[in-house]
Amino acid sequence: MGEVSNTGPKLRIAVDAMGGDHAPAEIVRGAVQAASDLGLEIILVGLKAEVEKELSEIDVTHLPVRVVEASEVIKDGEDPIMAALRKTDSSVAVATRLVKDGEADAVVSAGSTAGAAVCAMRYLGTIPGIERPMLGGAFLRLAPDTVVIDLGVNVGCQPSHLLSFAAAGIVYTKIFHGVDNPSVGLLNVGTEEGKGNEQVKEAYSLLKNSGLNFIGNVEGIDIPNGKVNVVVCDGFIGNIMLKLCEGISEAICHWLGQELKDKLSPADLENTTSELHKLVSASMERGGLLWGIDGIVGITHGSSRAPQILGTIQCLKEALESDFVGQLRTEIAKVQVNNH
Amino acid sequence: MGEVSNTGPKLRIAVDAMGGDHAPAEIVRGAVQAASDLGLEIILVGLKAEVEKELSEIDVTHLPVRVVEASEVIKDGEDPIMAALRKTDSSVAVATRLVKDGEADAVVSAGSTAGAAVCAMRYLGTIPGIERPMLGGAFLRLAPDTVVIDLGVNVGCQPSHLLSFAAAGIVYTKIFHGVDNPSVGLLNVGTEEGKGNEQVKEAYSLLKNSGLNFIGNVEGIDIPNGKVNVVVCDGFIGNIMLKLCEGISEAICHWLGQELKDKLSPADLENTTSELHKLVSASMERGGLLWGIDGIVGITHGSSRAPQILGTIQCLKEALESDFVGQLRTEIAKVQVNNH
Repeated sequence: MGEVSNTGPKLRIAVDAMGGDHAPAEIVRGAVQAASDLGLEIILVGLKAEVEKELSEIDVTHLPVRVVEASEVIKDGEDPIMAALRKTDSSVAVATRLVKDGEADAVVSAGSTAGAAVCAMRYLGTIPGIERPMLGGAFLRLAPDTVVIDLGVNVGCQPSHLLSFAAAGIVYTKIFHGVDNPSVGLLNVGTEEGKGNEQVKEAYSLLKNSGLNFIGNVEGIDIPNGKVNVVVCDGFIGNIMLKLCEGISEAICHWLGQELKDKLSPADLENTTSELHKLVSASMERGGLLWGIDGIVGITHGSSRAPQILGTIQCLKEALESDFVGQLRTEIAKVQVNNH
Repeated sequence: MGEVSNTGPKLRIAVDAMGGDHAPAEIVRGAVQAASDLGLEIILVGLKAEVEKELSEIDVTHLPVRVVEASEVIKDGEDPIMAALRKTDSSVAVATRLVKDGEADAVVSAGSTAGAAVCAMRYLGTIPGIERPMLGGAFLRLAPDTVVIDLGVNVGCQPSHLLSFAAAGIVYTKIFHGVDNPSVGLLNVGTEEGKGNEQVKEAYSLLKNSGLNFIGNVEGIDIPNGKVNVVVCDGFIGNIMLKLCEGISEAICHWLGQELKDKLSPADLENTTSELHKLVSASMERGGLLWGIDGIVGITHGSSRAPQILGTIQCLKEALESDFVGQLRTEIAKVQVNNH
C-alpha cells in the first residue's frame, strides 16, 4: 500500500454489491452516496445486469461509479468459508482481487464476515507478525473511547493472538479516537496477576513484556466504565458480549417504553429510548475494518442499509488517509522486537 | 444427606460469622433474623469473643442461636485457596466440618468463594459424576427464569464440565423456578452446530447425546430474551458477563438520572432507575448454592449485609426442603448412563 494523499487522484473503493440482506439495492445506494459525499471512486462488483438495474434508478451522472462483473454469488445457507474458497468469481472474491491487483485502494462487503476474511487472507495476506485477521471497535457508546478486540473473527485464540490484538487496538484508537498513548487491558475474571485460564495467564506475561502501555487485567465492569482504551479478549467472548448487549438494549428499551408511557411525552419517550439503545447496543451504525490484513478491508453487518454502507466506506477512507496498515505494521514490528 | 421434613426438628445452619466485608456484625444480624423469621437453628462459627459481642447487642432470647469457636481467621490479602487449605481451624473450615460431622444441615459463607469451595471439596466432596463445584443462578431479572451456569468458579472447563453444569441447571430451575421440563442451551457465537471453539464443539455433542432437553447453541442475545431455561458456559465467560452487566446497569442508571431529571418527578425517577438497576445487574439480592457438592453450601458476595445473609439462608432452606442434592445426584446419574 503506497502513500495516499488528499490532493492526488480519487481513492478507489471496490464494493461487494451482492453481499448482505439488502443487496444489491441498498449496497448500491450507499456506495453511490459515498461517491457523491466523500469524493471517492466507486467500483461496484457483482452480477452486471442486477447492479446496472439498480444504478438505472439513481442519478449517477458525473459520478465516478463503474461496474465490474462477478459471475458467481454466495447464497444464503451456503457455508460462507467453503463458498468463498470455491467460488473464485464471487463478488467478494473479485472485489478483493481488485485491491490485490492495484485497481482499487480498499474493499467493502456486507456479506459473511468469514467469507470476506477468507478472501482477504487469500488475496491480500496478513501483515508480518500477524497470523489472523481480527475485528474490533468501540464497543459501547457509554464508553466511546474504549475499543474491544476481537469481536468474533477469532475463536480459540493463542496467547500470541491476544498480543497482536493489543497492538492493532493501539493503532486503531490512535487513528480513530485520537488517543495519544492508548492503554491496554486484558479481559479477565479478576484484576490480580495470575487470575484466569491458561490462555490469559500466558497472554498476561506476553503483554507485560511487550513494551505496550499495558495496565494489567480488567474485568467486565471496566468496559462500560471506560477504564482502558483497548480491551483485549478472545473473539468467542467478544462476540458473546456484543450480542448480550444487543439483547439487553432491546429488552430495557421495551421495558422503559412501558414503564414511562404515562409519565413522559411521546417525543421525550422516543428520544430517551432511542438514545439509550445507542448507548447500550454495541456501536452498529457502521461496520469496521478487518484488522491485520495487508490492505484495507471493510466489513459491515448483513442487515446494513445504505447509511451503514456509506458509514463503512467513510471508515475505509479515514483508514487509507491515515495509513492504518502502515502504522499497524510499525507497531507490530515493535512488539515483535520486544518479545524476542 | 437424609430426608428433611418440615415437621421434624429445626434445620440447622452453620454460618461462617467471620467471612465477608461486614463480618461479623452484618453476618450475625442476618443469621439471627433467619433464626427468627425462618424457624431455623443457627450455629455461628468464628472467634467466640467477637461473635458474642455482636450477639450481646441483639435480642436473641428464646432464639435457637449458638456459637462455635473457630480460632483462625482468613485475612484480606491472603490467597484464599491456600489459606483455606492451611488454616484448618478457620471459620469457614470449621463451619463446613459441622455439616460433614452431621451437626449442621447446611453451611453459608460470605467469605471468598474459592475458599468456601476448597473447604466444600475437602470436607464434603462432590456428587459422583461431578468433578468440580459450580455456581449458577438467574442472571438477569429481565429473563427471570433463565439461569446461567457457571458464573465464575470454574475457568478453563472441560466439555464434560459443561455437561454437568447442564444437569445441575435443570435441577435448579425445576426446584427454584418451578419449570417442568427445563430447556438447555450452550452459549456460543452462532446457533448452527459446528460453531465455536473446541470446548463448545465437544460439549455440543455431549449435550446432544445426554438425554437432556437440549435445544442447541444459544447466543448472547438469548440470555435477556429468555429463550432457554439453562444457559451453559465456561465460568470465565459467565463471570465476565456478570460484571459487564453490573457495569452497564450502573452506567445507564447514572445516564438516565441526568437525562430525565427535569422530566420526571424525583420519586418517579428514583423508582425507574432502581427498578432498571435490578433488571440489568445480575440478581444480587441473595447469594446462591455451590452446586455439585455432596451437601448444601451457600455462598454470597463479600459485600453482603444482613438482608443478603437472610436471603441466602432462605435459599439453603429451600434447597434442603426440596432435597436439591438428592435430585442433582439422580439427574447426574441419568446423564452418565446416556453418555456411556
